[in-house]
This record gives sequence, structure tokens and C-alpha cells, in this order.
Amino acid sequence: MSVAIVGVGQTPFSRNCGVSIRELCFEAFREALEDLNLTSKEIDASIICSAPEYDKQRSPAGLISEYLGLTPKPTFYAESICSSSSTGVKVGYSFIKSGLHEIVAVIGFQKMSEISSAEVQERMGRGADTQWESPFGTMMPAGYAMYARAHMQKYGTTEEQLAKIKVKSGKYALLNPLAIFRREITLEECLKARVIASPLKMYDCCANADGASCVIMASEEKARKTTDTPVWVAGIGAASDTLSTTGRSNLTGLTCAVDAAKQAYQMAHLEPKDVDVAEVHDCFTIAEIMAYENLGFCKPSEGGKLIEESQTYIGGKIPVNVDGGLLSKGHPIGATGGSQIRTIVLQLQGRAGKTQVKGAEVGLVHNIGGIGVYGNVTLLRR
Amino acid sequence: MSVAIVGVGQTPFSRNCGVSIRELCFEAFREALEDLNLTSKEIDASIICSAPEYDKQRSPAGLISEYLGLTPKPTFYAESICSSSSTGVKVGYSFIKSGLHEIVAVIGFQKMSEISSAEVQERMGRGADTQWESPFGTMMPAGYAMYARAHMQKYGTTEEQLAKIKVKSGKYALLNPLAIFRREITLEECLKARVIASPLKMYDCCANADGASCVIMASEEKARKTTDTPVWVAGIGAASDTLSTTGRSNLTGLTCAVDAAKQAYQMAHLEPKDVDVAEVHDCFTIAEIMAYENLGFCKPSEGGKLIEESQTYIGGKIPVNVDGGLLSKGHPIGATGGSQIRTIVLQLQGRAGKTQVKGAEVGLVHNIGGIGVYGNVTLLRR
Repeated sequence: MSVAIVGVGQTPFSRNCGVSIRELCFEAFREALEDLNLTSKEIDASIICSAPEYDKQRSPAGLISEYLGLTPKPTFYAESICSSSSTGVKVGYSFIKSGLHEIVAVIGFQKMSEISSAEVQERMGRGADTQWESPFGTMMPAGYAMYARAHMQKYGTTEEQLAKIKVKSGKYALLNPLAIFRREITLEECLKARVIASPLKMYDCCANADGASCVIMASEEKARKTTDTPVWVAGIGAASDTLSTTGRSNLTGLTCAVDAAKQAYQMAHLEPKDVDVAEVHDCFTIAEIMAYENLGFCKPSEGGKLIEESQTYIGGKIPVNVDGGLLSKGHPIGATGGSQIRTIVLQLQGRAGKTQVKGAEVGLVHNIGGIGVYGNVTLLRR
Repeated sequence: MSVAIVGVGQTPFSRNCGVSIRELCFEAFREALEDLNLTSKEIDASIICSAPEYDKQRSPAGLISEYLGLTPKPTFYAESICSSSSTGVKVGYSFIKSGLHEIVAVIGFQKMSEISSAEVQERMGRGADTQWESPFGTMMPAGYAMYARAHMQKYGTTEEQLAKIKVKSGKYALLNPLAIFRREITLEECLKARVIASPLKMYDCCANADGASCVIMASEEKARKTTDTPVWVAGIGAASDTLSTTGRSNLTGLTCAVDAAKQAYQMAHLEPKDVDVAEVHDCFTIAEIMAYENLGFCKPSEGGKLIEESQTYIGGKIPVNVDGGLLSKGHPIGATGGSQIRTIVLQLQGRAGKTQVKGAEVGLVHNIGGIGVYGNVTLLRR
């Protein structure tokens, strides 16, 4: 029995949404249900995904499930920081495949505007090892900067190549009405921006945001009754790495992504060359370059060259992040994985408008939690 | 293909464990692995369960998975407040049944001693609806007191009957070396204790605690290789109710427990009369009385009578909480469900020592999150 994604939804990602988390989730849920032959009453279970401590509400699963009219169906909260909603999709897949449920809603959200930017930084730091690492400065930008330095040193990757990731991001974000930053940006602007954690500068980093996403999954039988355009879950991979970066053997790639990709390709009987369009977790520009390599879109060391040659634009070898990616959409932690999946589902359904990759049959989502702690790779197929 | 529980572990529950959360989890994990033909390297995935914001560490899944030697296997964090580890067991079941994984470790923990008692109360309040309810006083004791009042008014349940739940709890806790409160307590002491939220007095309430639990689950094939005494997951049920108690139609029972029980019995092809021993979520004495009714151990209204007649002692109709329950063991939120499952697994394996229910073949675990928001019922069989 196959498992499908039948509906996807996403709110605009914004600096300050001005609504409660339940309302934010409802907006994404509403879009996901549109055009489906399905009412909320037929949903058997929900999985609510975010990172905690950004808003006052604790245990939001009950709150959101109630507001969406899903009570008395089971619900719970799943978290793997920035990859929480990909984790939710993995659990949703297993709920359906195991026969426990037939239709599952995975709702990801984050409202980061309720607390100050300094408080957001503090929360993020406490997502790293609070005993041995974050008190000494290993925050997200510092962690990824360390990977960037190692990549530059070992492979000759340049700051220009990093900047070119953001240039691509800006170009596609212009076409994405849900992105925070909808403007093109030049290579010069990127290179002259202020340093955040060298070599990462302002435009090498994604921004905090408010937003929600929703993915509705169904068993094969229910999917066929619900929509004419189901998208099938072909492969699911998940892996972890040490929370403390000091425990890592390699700083030029994320081994959790390599492991997760291997599992997903194997389960789907697919190879990197079969992927027509991909969404990768570009929380920082270096993360996208490492993703190219970790997912097998190019050899290790050649990520910089791949963007240099514009091979990840539409028309290139493998179009990546044609919705603008985290760098331009913004990164409302718990909502991000669902937003990536939405982009790929729309591509495989041929509903991606101006950024449609023609004839896309297989899509990949790469979603990372923390500084390479949680790796999730999902392969979808038309 | 059946899914089994092959190993269980639990730390002592205490007021102040004095160790880090990773160490706490390790102690439970170590016990779960004891006597199994299994190394930590063979575990395919872990699910880390707790309620957030009790300790500084955010996203503890990566930290704990690393410390337990489970990296690079996938891990994530699952939460449904006090029923988090039962939720983890449900997900573990679906991971195995779906074919994604063969051996899964579910680790529940809570270290509540890092913050003050007032802060614990504040966190708990924020687990209720922070927009419309908890700012106006609907904390846990108040919520359950409301249920107690309704039960007394409609069914004639008495404060003596509530107290008798705690008397039973004390009797069995005396035999449980892992319980916080290991002493017998008289009916008079219970009735004379100070009022917390009328009619609930001090001994009607469970206590905050530090602790961890671990449940190791396996596919049928792996279970047979791992242990001679697998315990089978016969039924799993989960349901939710509105987060806000104002949305409830009935205040004399928890509908999420009724719904979850119905699902679990149906899946297991079992009835209440088939259950030989049960662990129910007695966060407050009234909760145990409602559980008797909600699980079908007696008719609605007759819960008070069931304890009055000592039918839930060993030797009675259905022995309940013969490990002392939350009321005497203490309630380290995320660890509680796993601790309940441990008690039932030991019973079904015939390893329960002085509290062994002779010939127990079928056991039930009832684990509730919040003021009846998340209901989880798990049926296990020898």
C-alpha cells in the first residue's frame, strides 16, 4: 500500500503575522483542504510540529487540533527543531502505512515575533548542547561558519560561490508571493554585506519568521477518493548526528544528510540523477552547497562549482530551491519542512506557475534540524 | 506482523535527582537493555519524550540520543504533556509495523527540580489554553477539582472514596523501591490534609518529580531473537479533547480516555473483563475513579463503589496501580507513561515480585495528558 500527499498549504512567511498561532495554522490548513474531496471530520489524526519556547502556549497540539475542528481525533507534538515538519511527515507516513490511520494532517508552525531577536538567539543557542557548547558561543551562524571555513579550506569553495546561492534565491523569491524577501540581489550586495560570522555575511543567512504549513497525507485508497493528483511518498530517510559539533569527524558536509539521503534513495529505488527538482535546507548559503554534495547532485568538493555553473537554476542539471529557499522565504522553524514539501508537491502536480520545472516526475526535500543534528530526506513522485 | 516490547527500564523517581537529563535517561536505558540479546548499535531509531521548558536544554532528542550511543540513528522529540511516552510508544509501534524500523527505543524523562515549584506551576498553567483559560486560574488541580465536584454531585462520589484511592496507593508504594513516597497512609491523614483545590486535598494530588523511563520495542522477528519473554502490543488507542475545559460537554469523565479505550479494545479484540492488571493515570485521586469508569472496569457512576469495595486491590476484580501509581511514585511528566508500561510488562513477564498478579495475561495502560486533553490506552498481552 502506497502513501500519498493529497493536500498542501502554507501561509505567507512574515516578520510579524499579527495573529495567534491557532489562526496561523488554520490558514495553512484551509489551503491544504482546498479542492480536496475531504472534510476536516475525515482526518484521523494530526501531528503538530514546531520548536518550543517561542510563544507562551505550551503543548500547542491540543490547542491547534481543537481550533481546526480535529477534536476528538488523536494529536501530538513532534519536534526536531528546523526539521520538525519533515519528522511529522515521516510519522504521518508510518501512521498510515502501519494501518493505524488513513488520513493524517501534519501542521508545522512558528511564531517568532512574540519575543525579541535577542531572545530568539538565546532560544536557538539552547537548542545546541547547553552543557558544553552554546555557553561558549556555538550558535547557529557560528556553527555553519565553521563548516563554511572547512569547506573553503579543503575544497577551495569561495565567498563568491556562497553569494551566488543567495543571488539565485533572490531571483526565484521574486516569483514567490509567500516569501518575506521578494527582490533580486546582486553579487556585489551580497559580498559587501556586514559580517555575521565570518565568512558568512548578512545575505548568507536566512531570517526568523512567522508562518505555518500543512501537509495532508492519505492511504492509497483514500488518496484516490480525495484528489485526482496525489503525490506519492517514494522514500523517507532520517538520521542524526552528535548534538555537539565537537563530536563530528567531518566539517565539510552533514553526515546526517548523507545517511538520510542514502535511506531515502534506497527505499524509493531511485538515484540522485532521477531527481527532477529539489528543495534543500539553505538556512545558510554554505548549507545549500553542502546539500548538493550530500545528496549526490555532484561529487564532494564540487558544490561550489555546481552553483558557479548555474546548474541548480531551472534549465540546469538539477533545479534547487526554485521557490527562493529559506534564504528568501524566511525560516519559521516548524513550518519550513512543510513549506518545502508544498513546493515539491506543486511542482509534481504541475501547479508551480512561473517556476514550473517542465515534466517534473520526481522531487526531493532535504530538511535539516540544528547544526546538522537531524537530517531528513523525503522523495516524492508523481 | 506483531510488535513487541522487549525491554523496560526506569530510574527511581525523586525530588532532586542531582544528575543531568542525559545521565537520567541513560540509567533507564541501561536497565531496559539488561538481560537482552541486544546492543545499543542495533537500535534503529529513538523517540525522546518529555514536556518542554523544565530544563535549559532545548531539543533534547539529539543530546540524549548522542549520550546513549544511538547516533547516527534517527531521533526526535514527541510530546503530549503527561502522556508523552505513551505517544512515543504509539509512534514506535507505527515505525515498526510500517516497516520503517525494526527496533525502537522510547525514552521518557523529566527533571523538574531545576526550577522552583512556582515556576513548575507556571509552566503547567501554560500547558492549558493561555488565551482564554489558564490566566484565569484553570491550573491542573483546579481542573481536576472541577471534575471531582461534578462527579460527586452527579454520582454521589465521596471524599472518603477519593481518599481510599490514596490509601491503596500508599500500601503498594511501600513495595516499590522506585517510588518517592514509600509509606502507608491512613484514611484520616488523607481527609485531614490541607486543601489544594477543594475537594482535592494534599494527598489527592501527585507530586512533581525527576525521573526517566525506557521502553524498547521490536518487530516480531527481532523480538524473538532478543528475549525469551516478549510482551506483545495488542491494542493502541489515542484521542484528544478540547484544550479548554469550557469546550467539554461532560465533566464526570474524560471522553479522550473513553475514545482511546474503545480503539484499543477493538484493535486487540479484547473487552474490559479480559484485563488482568491495569495502570491508570492517577494524577489526582478523582482521575483514578474516572478511569475505572472510562475504561469499562465498572459502569459510569460506580467508580467510587469499586474502590469502596476494594475491587482494585490485588485479589479484587481488577487490580489497578499496584506499583503505587502517580500518587505515590511521583509524576516526572515525560517519564510517566513509560513507567506505567514497565509495571505492566513486568507483571506480564511474571517479574513483579511481591505485587505480582498471578497468571496475568493481559494488561492495560491508561495515560492522560493535560486536563483530559490527550488520552492514550495501550493493551499488552503475554
